[in-house]
Amino acid sequence: MTSRRIFLKNLAEILPRSDVVSKETSIVIFDRNLLQAVPGFRLFIKKFRNAYPVRAGEGLKSFEAFTALASKIHKDLAGEVTRDWSVVAMGGGSVGDAAGFFASVYRRGLRLVHIPTTWLSAVDSSHGGKTALNLGGAKNQIGTFYEATETILVRSLLLSLSKNHVLDSLGEFAKMSILDPRVKLRANDTAEDLWAKLPKAIDAKLKIVRRDPTETRGDRQLLNLGHTMGHVFEIELGLSHGRSVGLGLLFAIDASKALGDLTANRAEVLRSYLRGFGFSKDGARVISASRAQRLLRQDKKRTASSSVTFITIRDFGRCQRRSVSVSRLIHIGRETGWLK
Amino acid sequence: MTSRRIFLKNLAEILPRSDVVSKETSIVIFDRNLLQAVPGFRLFIKKFRNAYPVRAGEGLKSFEAFTALASKIHKDLAGEVTRDWSVVAMGGGSVGDAAGFFASVYRRGLRLVHIPTTWLSAVDSSHGGKTALNLGGAKNQIGTFYEATETILVRSLLLSLSKNHVLDSLGEFAKMSILDPRVKLRANDTAEDLWAKLPKAIDAKLKIVRRDPTETRGDRQLLNLGHTMGHVFEIELGLSHGRSVGLGLLFAIDASKALGDLTANRAEVLRSYLRGFGFSKDGARVISASRAQRLLRQDKKRTASSSVTFITIRDFGRCQRRSVSVSRLIHIGRETGWLK
Repeated sequence: MTSRRIFLKNLAEILPRSDVVSKETSIVIFDRNLLQAVPGFRLFIKKFRNAYPVRAGEGLKSFEAFTALASKIHKDLAGEVTRDWSVVAMGGGSVGDAAGFFASVYRRGLRLVHIPTTWLSAVDSSHGGKTALNLGGAKNQIGTFYEATETILVRSLLLSLSKNHVLDSLGEFAKMSILDPRVKLRANDTAEDLWAKLPKAIDAKLKIVRRDPTETRGDRQLLNLGHTMGHVFEIELGLSHGRSVGLGLLFAIDASKALGDLTANRAEVLRSYLRGFGFSKDGARVISASRAQRLLRQDKKRTASSSVTFITIRDFGRCQRRSVSVSRLIHIGRETGWLK
Repeated sequence: MTSRRIFLKNLAEILPRSDVVSKETSIVIFDRNLLQAVPGFRLFIKKFRNAYPVRAGEGLKSFEAFTALASKIHKDLAGEVTRDWSVVAMGGGSVGDAAGFFASVYRRGLRLVHIPTTWLSAVDSSHGGKTALNLGGAKNQIGTFYEATETILVRSLLLSLSKNHVLDSLGEFAKMSILDPRVKLRANDTAEDLWAKLPKAIDAKLKIVRRDPTETRGDRQLLNLGHTMGHVFEIELGLSHGRSVGLGLLFAIDASKALGDLTANRAEVLRSYLRGFGFSKDGARVISASRAQRLLRQDKKRTASSSVTFITIRDFGRCQRRSVSVSRLIHIGRETGWLK
């Protein structure tokens, strides 16, 4: 089963143009905020016989919320669902993660369609086949690799979103643009420009995913660029994911230089590129080195307890994996003023 | 990643002979009854740093039990586990189902090793890559297709089991022998004989699984031979799975004849073969047709609300899928005296 991406003008095109979404045999799991936030959404969702509003956010990814949702769907539809039914996830990252997990395990797998309704999920989380739940307080510890049959990008939906939504996606968008310069993201891009560049950004991600879909060879870890320290910023500074990744990219530039992979000259070019999107070291409070050390030791991309797989940058389009000891990263963090 | 099967003399051979089981980086989830039931098991399990006893049975497959087990393991080991660790499932079907599901979703998949400790799991459930949890009262509604890296069959362990365990496996064993006569199961086979025939029975199953690992093409449904009505017997008569499948095979013979796929002559040969293992229509109470109808309409192999995929027998080694309406099956059940 191969996956395909469809770019549509508006919600009305979904039912006629999709091969998988149907009024009768789709289970639509959607962010209930869409009812208020998106013009025409009420009318659209009424067309579906089986639609389940959910409260988006990390709470949706708990086992308790998952069991409640799965039990409700099973109670309503058990007598009818066959394995050619589809689950349609309409929302941002948390809805995609939880609904994707449900699709991957209910009856050992129904077909899955993502309709991302945030820029962050449109450019990143709805592609590449990762689903996730949390385990207690620990994020994404449970999940599957499960490719969507279709991912549907809807122009009117994304262009109706506020500027904050756009800003939130710029970290991942800029990351893709450093990994693959064909994305050609520019600092003064409007939402219209992002829509036009979305196909290239998605392709850049999928090109990497296809080399290593289940993250076993390691190639897929390239997508972790900016995330090693980005996650530390996200937790310690309470910043959005997109903003944290932006800062993580700046840290990756400093670390790549310290590790000898990046020249001072190219480092400055990359820094100035990121400044264009509003990412600046001044936006980060200096973090305690011991807190950072503890978080890095829990990193999922850890290879052994004392080292992590870190992605360094040589230049636009030239990134690579490196096994770096946590103590080395902490040392670099102190030297470059990110940690104290 | 391909899966392999290892046939060992005793527990002591597991650590030296396995490529995947290790003292330090395996999470062993085992049926706590083994501590009493299997000589030498206490000494064996002490070698592992991370071993989790569980209470076998359907309760283990609830979301509540799963969340508790997963949370405990995560709490103990989160800081250490990397994706090259393995989960070792030691037990019968319920332990394999639940531990297999855990392996398939924890950190999006650790390596999985099955060490079946019942004949039923040794011949059937530990092969073919199905994992499962229950959803409320509904069996196996949640699960994944996830192939074990190794399945380890241990002679001393299986030969130490009581005769009841052996009897319990004969339904599935006889089913494999009808699907593939090279298994050469005979009525007077001893446990030693079953051990000798185990590789052929497993191969017969895997040959079918490989044609359709995720049950999408339909070939895999051949393994459902004897199960359509078998499940009805299991629920309505409260018989063991093995015994229910034995009766389900007898029903399949009657139905295959009624549907014109099986001659009276060959039907009698097959019936007499099954009688050898103690399966007889006299062992089944006549079931209410309306109860059977309700259960059949919930069958997972249902293609539409009114019909099921039923496996008919032409002869040993010649079985086939057929879409049969539930009402037709009920009619046949009445005519042949299984239902009233």
